[in-house]
Amino acid sequence: MRLVDLIRKKRDGGELSGPEIEFIVSGCTAGELPDYQLSAWLMAVLLKGMSRTETAALTQAMLHSGEVLDWREFTQKKVDKHSTGGVGDKTSLILTPIVAAGGLLVPMISGRGLGHTGGTLDKLESIPGFNVNLSSGEMRQVLATCGACMIGQTASICPADKKLYALRDVTGTVESPALICASIMGKKMAEGIDALVLDVKTGSGAFMKQEADAIHLAELMVETGERMGKKVIALITGMDQPLGRAVGNALEVIECIETLQGHGPEDLTELSLELAAWMFYLGERTVSVDAGRKLARELVANGAALRNFLQMTGLQGGNVQSLTDFSLLPTARHRMDVPSESSGYVTQIDCEKIGIASLVLGGGRSTKEDSINPAVGVIVHKKTGDKVSQGEPLCTLHYDDDRQLSEAKSLIESSYTVNATPPPARSPLMRKVIGAM
Amino acid sequence: MRLVDLIRKKRDGGELSGPEIEFIVSGCTAGELPDYQLSAWLMAVLLKGMSRTETAALTQAMLHSGEVLDWREFTQKKVDKHSTGGVGDKTSLILTPIVAAGGLLVPMISGRGLGHTGGTLDKLESIPGFNVNLSSGEMRQVLATCGACMIGQTASICPADKKLYALRDVTGTVESPALICASIMGKKMAEGIDALVLDVKTGSGAFMKQEADAIHLAELMVETGERMGKKVIALITGMDQPLGRAVGNALEVIECIETLQGHGPEDLTELSLELAAWMFYLGERTVSVDAGRKLARELVANGAALRNFLQMTGLQGGNVQSLTDFSLLPTARHRMDVPSESSGYVTQIDCEKIGIASLVLGGGRSTKEDSINPAVGVIVHKKTGDKVSQGEPLCTLHYDDDRQLSEAKSLIESSYTVNATPPPARSPLMRKVIGAM
Repeated sequence: MRLVDLIRKKRDGGELSGPEIEFIVSGCTAGELPDYQLSAWLMAVLLKGMSRTETAALTQAMLHSGEVLDWREFTQKKVDKHSTGGVGDKTSLILTPIVAAGGLLVPMISGRGLGHTGGTLDKLESIPGFNVNLSSGEMRQVLATCGACMIGQTASICPADKKLYALRDVTGTVESPALICASIMGKKMAEGIDALVLDVKTGSGAFMKQEADAIHLAELMVETGERMGKKVIALITGMDQPLGRAVGNALEVIECIETLQGHGPEDLTELSLELAAWMFYLGERTVSVDAGRKLARELVANGAALRNFLQMTGLQGGNVQSLTDFSLLPTARHRMDVPSESSGYVTQIDCEKIGIASLVLGGGRSTKEDSINPAVGVIVHKKTGDKVSQGEPLCTLHYDDDRQLSEAKSLIESSYTVNATPPPARSPLMRKVIGAM
Repeated sequence: MRLVDLIRKKRDGGELSGPEIEFIVSGCTAGELPDYQLSAWLMAVLLKGMSRTETAALTQAMLHSGEVLDWREFTQKKVDKHSTGGVGDKTSLILTPIVAAGGLLVPMISGRGLGHTGGTLDKLESIPGFNVNLSSGEMRQVLATCGACMIGQTASICPADKKLYALRDVTGTVESPALICASIMGKKMAEGIDALVLDVKTGSGAFMKQEADAIHLAELMVETGERMGKKVIALITGMDQPLGRAVGNALEVIECIETLQGHGPEDLTELSLELAAWMFYLGERTVSVDAGRKLARELVANGAALRNFLQMTGLQGGNVQSLTDFSLLPTARHRMDVPSESSGYVTQIDCEKIGIASLVLGGGRSTKEDSINPAVGVIVHKKTGDKVSQGEPLCTLHYDDDRQLSEAKSLIESSYTVNATPPPARSPLMRKVIGAM
């Protein structure tokens, strides 16, 4: 088999066989195939697409390029959630302790933020001492104690994905649904889980700006998961404005604690409980999604979920005290309100710009090598449909130095559209459920 | 400027600007851009295409990536011909001395054969001692004496093309009309010529099997040449059967000498004179193509063209004697006829297979690193429309060892279609002229 022939086959719109895809992925893992051929193949895949069968074969090959975790000694069902990423998207820190407190096992492997979106690992690391770099042995101990553990990707999981992703990032081949699906599902299946709930975001703050693209990706991932014998559903959810009010790592941790205490923002609470409910249902903890919603609400109301999060934080080396005394979390030195220039109603928010405002203040990464400042970010006061008076703050910037302050301010100002008349009924946060459950 | 952004722009169907294309080509020449990005860009170009403006900018950038030859001290117009390659295509060795004998300058830089097609340099090198590796100073001396010189590409001409072509070869990105155009026209324009005649071949022995593809490429190359201020026309010519009767390097040299003596095969003579006529016309040696045809015929008839070829051969170190005593040329040890299995008329020849038959006997290259045997090849006795009796030879194989003999024989047998009724009127050799002249 020669890679150049497989490149030509894909370039001409052909379908690659399972062994052909396996040849590419294992050759990539072993470092036997030159990058310049792999990148030409990736571009051909992006522009010519892959069939469902090819996508499933690619996902299988990615999964088996490295270690697959095995939690057989745990009797609970193993479940996880994956989000395609958004601005202020912090549900992992809320639903993980809810679902673990409800009796399921959540061996979550997360990523870091890139571009305008945040990452679960960055949020967790804003808790002083929190260690996301656990071995699978250490992860096992944490899981045995509290039923949940949240770590970063290890070198042994999906090494082919690491290599291909690095190449995709610099060759303009990130946006292929087949490649995205194989990358996400390969890694998630390597967690050794029984069921997976996907949160596929669409709107101005999501990677998929168009709902049709989000639905297409969701269908692909659900079908791929089912072909691999797993229970998978996807929620298509709106990302037309930040989720909750906090954007920025420590600010988001505070909002998560408040949500686990039962007084978080309505949209964040609703989505976190909904995702947890589906995890309970797919993990066979409840007989229906409705019963899952009820259970999730109870576990927040009785404090069990919050206790679980504090326990996991302690087990992973984090300062538990900082989650009750927020002054122990990283805190920005300065705050500045961004006032509205006119009175009226917020009819639209260019959500990506809010994420970039937090990024330019130091709260995010432009490139993977950037370091981040956990303290800075944006608190969003006005959301779509809200009434606002001239001079009233739209957002508050939390910042340490004022070099990028005016850029962040302009980003916030230009992201808001304020009109005299209120917007038509808001599109719902939960748009659609994809999957046969 | 970042290459990844230019890859994404092309991937999304955008048009690259002149400076953007210049950035890529000069970065490639300087070795500053990684191969894995260049190959992703090449695949995006192949699948998304390039506008005429982009193609012209790419050709300009290729041309200026290295040395541009300068023959200002010669008062004659400088002309050349380029063929997209075929089986038995040997017109360069015939028209070059005709045109030089007619008073124009022909500073020809040629290539080697690859796959089923032959290459001018390989044919010339079958003449003992013939040196195609001249410096531009040595080339100048030969041109000053006889008006023509035929050499191989030097390292200083179009270095970007060398690098990109090597990458295209292993990444399935050879077949892009824009990339083919820039590669050919960049190199030809670097010869410092005033006018160029293109022979774009179509049919079973050509790279462009479909006439529409050949016309598209021809139009692209003619327009690109005109944008660069050169006189360029293209002939679309048939390659449904070998040109002439000889396929194989020394065998083809003999046929060229016979043609320069005035008794070559009709099709080869006709095409060589036609191309020479257009060179005379574009080089302003004659006022019309018709006058060019007349001049070309005269220069063959009066022996001036043959004398010019012998002179050039001598100047480039070749054994002139071997062109009058063919026993001094490399000669294969054995010959074998391939007889027809039935009687009737030759209605079709799969021309590529004839080229491959010569290749497997050792007369061609599968990869650029292969060495070739100048003596071996195929003499074609029956061409389309010819009557043939069962047992009568279709071709004669000239070979040195019989390891690949049965494969070559099967290729010849399977390339011929013999039917009871003669074929409809043959499609003409000269199909179309592209260009505003």
